Amino acid sequence: MLDEYLKKYAKLVENELEKFFKKKLESVDIDDEIKRMVDVIREYTMRGGKRLRPVLTIVSYKLYGGKNEGEIIKASGSLELIQSYLLIHDDIIDESDLRRGKPTVHKIYSYNGEKFGRDMAIIAGDLASMYAQEILSTSNFNKEDLVNALYKLSEIVEYTGYGQILDVLSSYRDNFSEDDLLKLHTYKTAKYTIEGPMIIGSMLAGNYDFRMISEYSIPVGIAFQLQDDVLGLFGNEIEIGKPVTSDLEEGKKTLLILKASENENYRNIIGEILGKKNINMEELEKVRKIVRDSGALEYTQKMAEDLVKKGINALGKIDSDEKQFLKEFAEWVIKRKF
Amino acid sequence: MLDEYLKKYAKLVENELEKFFKKKLESVDIDDEIKRMVDVIREYTMRGGKRLRPVLTIVSYKLYGGKNEGEIIKASGSLELIQSYLLIHDDIIDESDLRRGKPTVHKIYSYNGEKFGRDMAIIAGDLASMYAQEILSTSNFNKEDLVNALYKLSEIVEYTGYGQILDVLSSYRDNFSEDDLLKLHTYKTAKYTIEGPMIIGSMLAGNYDFRMISEYSIPVGIAFQLQDDVLGLFGNEIEIGKPVTSDLEEGKKTLLILKASENENYRNIIGEILGKKNINMEELEKVRKIVRDSGALEYTQKMAEDLVKKGINALGKIDSDEKQFLKEFAEWVIKRKF
Repeated sequence: MLDEYLKKYAKLVENELEKFFKKKLESVDIDDEIKRMVDVIREYTMRGGKRLRPVLTIVSYKLYGGKNEGEIIKASGSLELIQSYLLIHDDIIDESDLRRGKPTVHKIYSYNGEKFGRDMAIIAGDLASMYAQEILSTSNFNKEDLVNALYKLSEIVEYTGYGQILDVLSSYRDNFSEDDLLKLHTYKTAKYTIEGPMIIGSMLAGNYDFRMISEYSIPVGIAFQLQDDVLGLFGNEIEIGKPVTSDLEEGKKTLLILKASENENYRNIIGEILGKKNINMEELEKVRKIVRDSGALEYTQKMAEDLVKKGINALGKIDSDEKQFLKEFAEWVIKRKF
Repeated sequence: MLDEYLKKYAKLVENELEKFFKKKLESVDIDDEIKRMVDVIREYTMRGGKRLRPVLTIVSYKLYGGKNEGEIIKASGSLELIQSYLLIHDDIIDESDLRRGKPTVHKIYSYNGEKFGRDMAIIAGDLASMYAQEILSTSNFNKEDLVNALYKLSEIVEYTGYGQILDVLSSYRDNFSEDDLLKLHTYKTAKYTIEGPMIIGSMLAGNYDFRMISEYSIPVGIAFQLQDDVLGLFGNEIEIGKPVTSDLEEGKKTLLILKASENENYRNIIGEILGKKNINMEELEKVRKIVRDSGALEYTQKMAEDLVKKGINALGKIDSDEKQFLKEFAEWVIKRKF
């Protein structure tokens, strides 16, 4: 069910995105460099990914009785362009050179120097955000639902911005707590990746009771981020698509790190490694051992499991294909290796 | 007429923006630093400015028979937040420390280093953009008109992005021509500052014939930018609110510079000064003299005058207060000293 749905709808969303970019490239006949920029955004967006957010929009739309599958597939592409927008700006903030094994946008444009690369990437992100608004606002739904969905789309990005503030600050804060972290995950991941896309699908189907969506999305979304953090430290570089030292080098205060740091000895060792550039394998193994020995890994995984159970519970009786999908999706969130 | 309208509506728009931020500050009860960021965006937005874009939205709405003045004043605030968004990102790109005599957002946040300041300013701009969408999407107009206006709002920002690409590239291009420059002004200024806001006002009043708007806006908007460039070189620092050397230091290829550079001698002298940091008064005077002696100043001012005439012509018979405003506005565009 999960695999079949994910593959089928991801493909359909990708087809619509390709169509959008084809039309956009034809219409932007202003300057070759502008065409090139549109193509950079297209290539960055089409590099792959699981298209989780559009698929969740589609599933939610169908769950709440939406019938216009062609139109929701088209509209849901807006969530993927929001993802491009946020990732392009994120790449600048994280100073990442690679995204899905290929150069990030500021890297692509670094041929005139780092500043030029950054400037062009800021603009590229801004453009992707506008393309997202365009795709949704030109989709053919009841206009009142559409205005609400457009409002929700901007609210999702607003919330993600708040999460991003907490994220940037976390590296500078000494008193960053477990509560702060769960707040960060709620805003930067749960609302953005699961709740928001599902609410948009629901609105476009005309349903405005979001209780089940929220009760499902927030715990499952936090679990999603906790699993991301586990994979970021223990995962396979090829499967997760980034160096397994990068979370540590960025100084990310994950729950694994926070929990392990409750012990003073461990805290001192972690303090010496966290945020360092070019962390070597020995240092990585040292942190991994501490995270295991302190019980932080077990604590995090247990929390993720409990959250997933809570989320599945909110679905109530599994009486439709869509609920079955959401149940399997929640289970996958903590089983996944990438 | 012009002064009276500008003052009256600017004040009303500012009141609505203050109300928006007050509500936003109350609702964002996530973290003190997030409240602080909202307040930074508020303070930056409320620093002043002529509120031209919202006022043009209001005037256009009234010109096309719109009757809900309270609602259009509220909705038009979205144009001012788009302005904050673009200026905050522009300040990063231009590495400006000051905006309207006060620190830019990346400067406000530079206490943890330049990178931290830039990161927070990228997020601040993104948030302002979402606030713009929120203000417009929650305003009370016919939903179909509202969806169209929301689409137009994103299209304005898209076009401005294209203009911005041309602008960033202009400093790197040797073969940057007068045609390229007029394209840049069309996208980065005319569509963004005049045509876009007027089309949004027109849509919200239910009018979809934009011919007069475009025939008025594009020439007047280009003239607006040409006058900006003249003031950027010959204006009074206090009135224009930035150092009179900053356009030269940024390496801006204005029409003044392009025209004067047609002469090889002048081109060589300009080439030595344009893009230099810390340009002194002697160098400034040298460029000013060349721009005058070459006829580039006269050429630019004549072009701006002709464009303004063309714009006013498009208005046809001046048979309403709103048309009178637009006529006076067009005349002011090239008479203004700031």
